[in-house]
Amino acid sequence: MAGIFYGIGVGPGDPELLTLKAINAIKTADVIIAPRTEKKDESTAMSIARPYIQERSEILELVFPMNYNAQALSDAWVNNKKTILELLDAGKKVAFLTLGDPMLYSTYMYVHRLLEDSGHEIINIPGVNSFSAIGNRLGMALAEGGDILSIVPATIDDERLERVLAVSDNVVLMKVYKNFTEIVEKLNKHGMVENAVMVSKCGLEGEEIIHDLEANGSKKVNYLSTILTKRSKVSKHALA
Amino acid sequence: MAGIFYGIGVGPGDPELLTLKAINAIKTADVIIAPRTEKKDESTAMSIARPYIQERSEILELVFPMNYNAQALSDAWVNNKKTILELLDAGKKVAFLTLGDPMLYSTYMYVHRLLEDSGHEIINIPGVNSFSAIGNRLGMALAEGGDILSIVPATIDDERLERVLAVSDNVVLMKVYKNFTEIVEKLNKHGMVENAVMVSKCGLEGEEIIHDLEANGSKKVNYLSTILTKRSKVSKHALA
Repeated sequence: MAGIFYGIGVGPGDPELLTLKAINAIKTADVIIAPRTEKKDESTAMSIARPYIQERSEILELVFPMNYNAQALSDAWVNNKKTILELLDAGKKVAFLTLGDPMLYSTYMYVHRLLEDSGHEIINIPGVNSFSAIGNRLGMALAEGGDILSIVPATIDDERLERVLAVSDNVVLMKVYKNFTEIVEKLNKHGMVENAVMVSKCGLEGEEIIHDLEANGSKKVNYLSTILTKRSKVSKHALA
Repeated sequence: MAGIFYGIGVGPGDPELLTLKAINAIKTADVIIAPRTEKKDESTAMSIARPYIQERSEILELVFPMNYNAQALSDAWVNNKKTILELLDAGKKVAFLTLGDPMLYSTYMYVHRLLEDSGHEIINIPGVNSFSAIGNRLGMALAEGGDILSIVPATIDDERLERVLAVSDNVVLMKVYKNFTEIVEKLNKHGMVENAVMVSKCGLEGEEIIHDLEANGSKKVNYLSTILTKRSKVSKHALA
């Protein structure tokens, strides 16, 4: 029997930011898969989607280890694949929930690859990206006219970070909690610190919006923090 | 009286890809503003949102000229601002529809700036970006792990295009219809032509997906075309 596998973007956090397509797929699913890490009690994607999950749907929390020893990782993934294929072979509609959008920095892509040759139909449903939610929250354009917008994990090496800051008009920096002080220094050098805004836990409890990054000093930065910035028209860099 | 102004992203084209928040705002709006150009009969954003517009809502099609002589442009914008402020001053809920997301390459940002000091509440509602819809349609990741993703209007100058292709792992190229042949040449040079896919009219009637860009030759490219690509692991460039 042919099942259907849905990869569903649940968006950045607010349950009202799911698309109607995502909501409909969740409502018709026989099984809802919520990926989680070993560390957390409940899947974040699951708590966002909860208002739409029907009583009759089975909820399956699967752990997809990403930072673990190779053998454990491999065993867990093989078992997860087997579990999902058994459900699909039984003709079930299986919905896999993912934060934001399924195609952007998501574990879902690995699951997609495990299943794409299985013969079952796969339907991917896009979601609102967290940086879009932040831009809309602040009323700050992500890009206009002929602007280049780059989405950059702040964990890349220094030389690449400098090159991408130099060529972009607008930058979204993800995962900035690890090396925040260095990031601010680099933004300053490239005329991008004046317009920078950092948002932590956007739309969630404990949301913080920080406009003056240089004043933040060495205060600890939350894990769910993103910086949006654009080049200043007259930057310190240009004046130097 | 205080009105509320909603800037609403209606997403890439499929009416099911509006968020629940966008749908609710459209349903409660007293007035729906659909921006259009002089050239087209109906606003595209309006036709996407149509299933959710209530009978009691007034529909207002306003022309916001973008490529016009300065005086006509300025007059039209001044009049549009006046029209919107009168509605808000009368306490109306006014919804402004915009394709994709309000913060990304959108006319809406100019309207936002006209109104941000008006004293009326402005609520921006994010939408699914067209490149996310394309990635999900193809099952093609936009970025993974430590990848840099750059969103690039293909109309930028050659030198910047080369620099951004050189530093990015993944690229979304918008507005590729103007200089398609040159774009393909540049992608080839940077090891990004093998994995490139061009999608025209994603999710709309007449959708086309083209995997071999070099074979497309000098065939005319549709206005609504976007290229998604990522660097090849072993590129012609790297081998040269």
